[in-house]
Amino acid sequence: MLEIKRLSLKEAKILLEGAELKAAEMKVPMCTAIADETGNMIAFTRMDDAKITSVDIAINKAFTAAAAKRATKDYNEIAVPGKPTFGIHTTNQSRFTIIGGGIPVFDGSAIVGSVGVSGGTAAEDETVAKAAIDYFNGKNK
Amino acid sequence: MLEIKRLSLKEAKILLEGAELKAAEMKVPMCTAIADETGNMIAFTRMDDAKITSVDIAINKAFTAAAAKRATKDYNEIAVPGKPTFGIHTTNQSRFTIIGGGIPVFDGSAIVGSVGVSGGTAAEDETVAKAAIDYFNGKNK
Amino acid sequence: MLEIKRLSLKEAKILLEGAELKAAEMKVPMCTAIADETGNMIAFTRMDDAKITSVDIAINKAFTAAAAKRATKDYNEIAVPGKPTFGIHTTNQSRFTIIGGGIPVFDGSAIVGSVGVSGGTAAEDETVAKAAIDYFNGKNK
Amino acid sequence: MLEIKRLSLKEAKILLEGAELKAAEMKVPMCTAIADETGNMIAFTRMDDAKITSVDIAINKAFTAAAAKRATKDYNEIAVPGKPTFGIHTTNQSRFTIIGGGIPVFDGSAIVGSVGVSGGTAAEDETVAKAAIDYFNGKNK
Repeated sequence: MLEIKRLSLKEAKILLEGAELKAAEMKVPMCTAIADETGNMIAFTRMDDAKITSVDIAINKAFTAAAAKRATKDYNEIAVPGKPTFGIHTTNQSRFTIIGGGIPVFDGSAIVGSVGVSGGTAAEDETVAKAAIDYFNGKNK
Repeated sequence: MLEIKRLSLKEAKILLEGAELKAAEMKVPMCTAIADETGNMIAFTRMDDAKITSVDIAINKAFTAAAAKRATKDYNEIAVPGKPTFGIHTTNQSRFTIIGGGIPVFDGSAIVGSVGVSGGTAAEDETVAKAAIDYFNGKNK
Repeated sequence: MLEIKRLSLKEAKILLEGAELKAAEMKVPMCTAIADETGNMIAFTRMDDAKITSVDIAINKAFTAAAAKRATKDYNEIAVPGKPTFGIHTTNQSRFTIIGGGIPVFDGSAIVGSVGVSGGTAAEDETVAKAAIDYFNGKNK
Repeated sequence: MLEIKRLSLKEAKILLEGAELKAAEMKVPMCTAIADETGNMIAFTRMDDAKITSVDIAINKAFTAAAAKRATKDYNEIAVPGKPTFGIHTTNQSRFTIIGGGIPVFDGSAIVGSVGVSGGTAAEDETVAKAAIDYFNGKNK
């Protein structure tokens, strides 16, 4: 039988808190989704004035980072025309998202969930997702 | 120009907290979504061990209660075969949800958002959604 | 070669005007869609405070009434469990709408388009759709 | 509670009128959709002989410009292969449209809705959307 490690809701809320603190500091209202290790959503917040389109994008960045076990930014680089992964962004009913801002969360070597952020540029989204994970790791020490 | 009132994220989190407290008391792990007055999601939590199918259902109960301006339970009663509203549950790309547990949130006479709960029976979901709104109204006094 | 008669945009706007006048008189804010004889939309209005879910429903009532060449109310009656048409509401990517409020517009014996109304009860929607067509026929005399 | 400003139907019709006047002057039949600040449609017209594919495109340009708070033309430039926003056009169930012709409508610094135009080249669509907003601003002085 497999034994799976998965973020709890309590842990997901710490990740959300980390994302919101960083986004507030950057003055960019963000949507943040936390997914479990299968990509299913555990928790989500949309900050006041964040873009409506970012609801879907944040959820699907989190889905992709966990379910494909890789940061969405990496796919942005390898899924361009001429490379063998081109086209992956239309798979999974177009839920496969190749814009930076989705990052897996690890416990040791195991992926236990993910953070997906949308609302700013891809670089800003990535920064906030990383900050959420740093904040979480700091609290878990 | 129309002037619209909408739940803030801070208010949405109070609603979530009210739902989680009631669900914990009932020992039924729930998914709860809070939507704005147009049905777009503001915040969401899935309690540990809640059903995966409830993620979608909670989100769409919240969508329906806000966007159709009516509790989803009401539609369950009027959308049966032989009644004129039969068939409404497949509209809006099947996001129109007619199972109890989605309730609009009012500010005076204006709908400012909604709560959608899924995880137990329809009656349990409805109880948790109502408890969330009572908790919110208690805090806002 | 077939020769097809189709509502013009100018005629569609008269139908919209008729719907809005009746809805205002009834004090029920409505969404109204006008489709051509193939079910493709020509014009649409959402009155202030009308339900968001009614955007999709009005468009698809108009689609159904024109494309299936029959009032949506008729399908409500024949598409119930136990009757041979049961299930038709999930066809056409669930765009086939079986709630009253979608009515074909005729020019002589030819269907030239349709009106789809959503926002009140099915009976209210039907009343507004009929009023739109009466208004149009009155103007066209 | 947040306080939001939104276009009324009366204002949406002025925007439509502006679009139709410009399109007629250019002799290019257009579809024009007006959305509220969340991207939900308020009003729509398809001019006689406009393309059927433009119905969906105009609606989704309006959705994108409002819900992503940015002109669709901007996304066309930043969403190309090799740039970090590549792939955004398949998000939001492919409603995220990156072809010019969708422009937000502002009231001061607040986005209150949007115009989405389709039927000509992207440049022609953009021209008509801008003309609609200029016409609206002229009437609102």
